[in-house]
Amino acid sequence: MKLYGYFRSSAAYRVRIALNLKNLPYETVPVHLLKDGGQQLAAPYRELNPTCLVPTLQEGDWALGQSMAILEYLEETHPNPPLLPVDARQRARVRAIAQFIACDIHPLNNLRVLKYLKHELKVDEEAKNAWYRHWAEQGLAAVEAMLAGHPATGRYCHGDQPSFADVCLVPQLANARRFNCDLGAMPTITRIDAACAELPAFQQAAPGSQPDAEA
Amino acid sequence: MKLYGYFRSSAAYRVRIALNLKNLPYETVPVHLLKDGGQQLAAPYRELNPTCLVPTLQEGDWALGQSMAILEYLEETHPNPPLLPVDARQRARVRAIAQFIACDIHPLNNLRVLKYLKHELKVDEEAKNAWYRHWAEQGLAAVEAMLAGHPATGRYCHGDQPSFADVCLVPQLANARRFNCDLGAMPTITRIDAACAELPAFQQAAPGSQPDAEA
Repeated sequence: MKLYGYFRSSAAYRVRIALNLKNLPYETVPVHLLKDGGQQLAAPYRELNPTCLVPTLQEGDWALGQSMAILEYLEETHPNPPLLPVDARQRARVRAIAQFIACDIHPLNNLRVLKYLKHELKVDEEAKNAWYRHWAEQGLAAVEAMLAGHPATGRYCHGDQPSFADVCLVPQLANARRFNCDLGAMPTITRIDAACAELPAFQQAAPGSQPDAEA
Repeated sequence: MKLYGYFRSSAAYRVRIALNLKNLPYETVPVHLLKDGGQQLAAPYRELNPTCLVPTLQEGDWALGQSMAILEYLEETHPNPPLLPVDARQRARVRAIAQFIACDIHPLNNLRVLKYLKHELKVDEEAKNAWYRHWAEQGLAAVEAMLAGHPATGRYCHGDQPSFADVCLVPQLANARRFNCDLGAMPTITRIDAACAELPAFQQAAPGSQPDAEA
């Protein structure tokens, strides 16, 4: 398998964690989101993935974009170790946390959105960072509320095995720290993040550990 | 089952279509996103769903938020008629289209985002509408590129049965029309939208057919 991505993309980071947790070897193909006016916007990447977003997973000549669809595909084709519980309501809880991060936090703070704020709406650096922190802090506070004190929350977001929810949470927190978000009132998600950081699958997926990492 | 939603929420609209396609009866509980400073932001809704977003599905005292998690839950607990194909790669294709709409088009044009643009960034009406059209048109053009000429595209997004992809596409197109987006160069998605519009499940889920509909 090949994974087209960018070291800092938190969507690519999710897929890297899942591949590692499932012990699936893959080849990294870097797509630099800033160089050449954005390598994701032009051929050959655009032909592989018309959404012009990373990541894309490739198996032979078959390609699949969209990180959440990739997670489900990996779960269906390589079910062990599982990243979803067995029970339908428990699976739903894990997916609700993961999807909330993927749909309702991450897209608002994507690189292309920050670029639009700066170049089209002429928003200054301070207001752009306030935008970032607003959505990240509001969103992560909701994740904290979903997890804190819930009987199904364990060492990880759901019980004592990592799931889709942790796979999405950890990259979002890495991003939030990069933008100096205030995580002080979020003891549950920072505790879970620290537990994940002890696992090689998460360590090896970190942006700084990627072949295209920059300072 | 109870579905907490708002007639114009395209996330709630997705779930309404899926419930109808699966012939599952449900009770609508309106949550007015504009009245009372936003009924989704306060008790009792906030206690039901700490993300303060609609929709939420409730069964007895169990509640599930996040439309994409709800779709997967309904598919797992009420598999017939299916809204996903059987083959893993085909399922992945359907999910990639659906998730691209849910993660990469819809959240940027959500009510809370448009409110932030207006009230916090003091963006004028014209620039706010340009923002909307930018993300909707760019995103829907990518969906058109994923569907047009693809051998798996049929009467609907995937073959001749409605799937998660159609469930997500139709509400997004309804929204795009409301904001006067240019859909002229998107013959495939507008053809599929017209095919869906012939089905009672889609008709009965439309915003104008809801008990809380306003002019």
